[in-house]
Amino acid sequence: MEENKSKKTIEKTSQLRQDLVTGDWVVIALGRGKRPGEFAKKRQPYSALQSQCPFCFPEETEQEKDVLIYRREDGDWSLRVFPNKFPAFSRGKAIKHFEEGPYFAMDGVGYHEVVVTRDHMRQIALLDPVEVAEIIDAYQSRYIDLMSKKSVNHIEIFHNHGNEAGASIEHPHSQLMAVPVISPGIQLELDGAEQYHRTNRKCVFCTMAAWETQERKRLIFENDNFLAFCPFSSRGAFEVWVMPKAHKPYFERINNEEKVDLGEALQKSIGAIYKTLDDPAYNFYIHTSPCDGKDYPHYHWHIEILPHTATWAGFELSTGIEISTIEPEAAAEALRANV
Amino acid sequence: MEENKSKKTIEKTSQLRQDLVTGDWVVIALGRGKRPGEFAKKRQPYSALQSQCPFCFPEETEQEKDVLIYRREDGDWSLRVFPNKFPAFSRGKAIKHFEEGPYFAMDGVGYHEVVVTRDHMRQIALLDPVEVAEIIDAYQSRYIDLMSKKSVNHIEIFHNHGNEAGASIEHPHSQLMAVPVISPGIQLELDGAEQYHRTNRKCVFCTMAAWETQERKRLIFENDNFLAFCPFSSRGAFEVWVMPKAHKPYFERINNEEKVDLGEALQKSIGAIYKTLDDPAYNFYIHTSPCDGKDYPHYHWHIEILPHTATWAGFELSTGIEISTIEPEAAAEALRANV
Repeated sequence: MEENKSKKTIEKTSQLRQDLVTGDWVVIALGRGKRPGEFAKKRQPYSALQSQCPFCFPEETEQEKDVLIYRREDGDWSLRVFPNKFPAFSRGKAIKHFEEGPYFAMDGVGYHEVVVTRDHMRQIALLDPVEVAEIIDAYQSRYIDLMSKKSVNHIEIFHNHGNEAGASIEHPHSQLMAVPVISPGIQLELDGAEQYHRTNRKCVFCTMAAWETQERKRLIFENDNFLAFCPFSSRGAFEVWVMPKAHKPYFERINNEEKVDLGEALQKSIGAIYKTLDDPAYNFYIHTSPCDGKDYPHYHWHIEILPHTATWAGFELSTGIEISTIEPEAAAEALRANV
Repeated sequence: MEENKSKKTIEKTSQLRQDLVTGDWVVIALGRGKRPGEFAKKRQPYSALQSQCPFCFPEETEQEKDVLIYRREDGDWSLRVFPNKFPAFSRGKAIKHFEEGPYFAMDGVGYHEVVVTRDHMRQIALLDPVEVAEIIDAYQSRYIDLMSKKSVNHIEIFHNHGNEAGASIEHPHSQLMAVPVISPGIQLELDGAEQYHRTNRKCVFCTMAAWETQERKRLIFENDNFLAFCPFSSRGAFEVWVMPKAHKPYFERINNEEKVDLGEALQKSIGAIYKTLDDPAYNFYIHTSPCDGKDYPHYHWHIEILPHTATWAGFELSTGIEISTIEPEAAAEALRANV
């Protein structure tokens, strides 16, 4: 009896959705699901004292020297960028290659910087859109500087918010990693976009943007230059993509008008996540074309925002398939109400 | 000054290692590293009472009906398998396909079962090797039954241990998911093994097994049929692979002698992780050939064990590249001392 009942519920609700870009699958498993409000998961507090925050007091805590600083009219800084004190990649030098039997390795050469905004307590959800546009401006500025460095073929820009999302320091900050290799995460999308264009003679991301703007059921926000929506094949609950409406392969070519619009779209999206999920931990990152000297005319840069609502367990680690427990359409509806 | 010092340290220690099977990269970032003992991270306690454990009392908590049960000589059960009460996939039925504009989806049809051992307090690290061999036997038995079901093309077998590794129930249990699609995690390895064989006329996993057995610096344990080692391009700190020494594409063809040896190798590996990292959360899963009716002569099944030592943050989510902060050689040395 019990068995039949649960079986019936599930059969109506579990779905495999295919990612239009990569061909990968995600599982939407509503049998385990909850109502949108039940996903709220306030991030854990930090134990470190704000008075000892290294990003409030970069000089006192011996951070590396600024590579970029923005100042307010009163002379105080509003944003600064400096090399990460504990970098995952080491600067400069030519890359040495190593072999060990059948294996291959190379020096982890690259650049690892942090982008810090002034106020410890004002996370992106609480900033003005124009302040977020300043962060975008800093991303672009550092990107353009780093892309011409020797051995840099790809630049990752990402933001971790909250302990559970891997941010060891509470103070709002983003990171840039400029690395010699193109990551599998980007490569799969580059290949997918290339193949979609070959088959359909159009950009797969433009196709998504046009469909989402027309259908509106997964749309969260739009302005002249950007749209924000929950992807049809969301990897996780309440995932949001922020994407240029026009076909743009290269983030670093963003102009001032677009920066203002992106600042607004990003702030509105993160603000809606903040309200809907009660200040959760989250990550976002920019997916853009590599800077390895090749052209990527069919790629279309965008930002992916992933609230931290679940833990990767054995199934996800093994398969790379994520199990989401809310329909992207229901997530979008809840987020839209909080924009 | 400070800057130069840290720069120097890092340059010696950050390395990009290439995965021999998939071609993907991992970062070994020792600049952030710690000594092996410092990775110890006892898993969090569970708040639920053992007296209310659904897997101690399957009847009382209305679990689904057993599909397999093993009994001791005294008549009590030692292991049982039943369908997951909250499955990610729904049973039976033919698969319906859906289209929405440019997108594609299908019913999430499949099977989702749990494999439960008797004793709430005896996790795998604390079992006898022969008891682990019984778990392997149950995996095989269920695998063989599920592989012939309609719409099943791939079967994932995995084990989550500890809250932080995604196990919502403390009682030791594994899971099987039989699904209609081949996951990207397996597809990348199938493609890599195929390509390596085309180029080198030998199996890439056999190549690794031979090298690791000869070099011994990443080896943790071996017996007649299996070896356990930290992979050269470990995805995370203290990752361990348990692999048949002989070329074996299909897990489900394991024989009784091999089951005993695998029980030993798996128990010794997990036991060493338990001692070295002070009972951490972990995941393991079996990577084996799909059961979609095709042949996979160049694949080589194995088990991957991933202790939960870090959180996936923006960089990992964006790139798929994981940053490990201990050399696999140092991890293996520490584990070896605790076998």
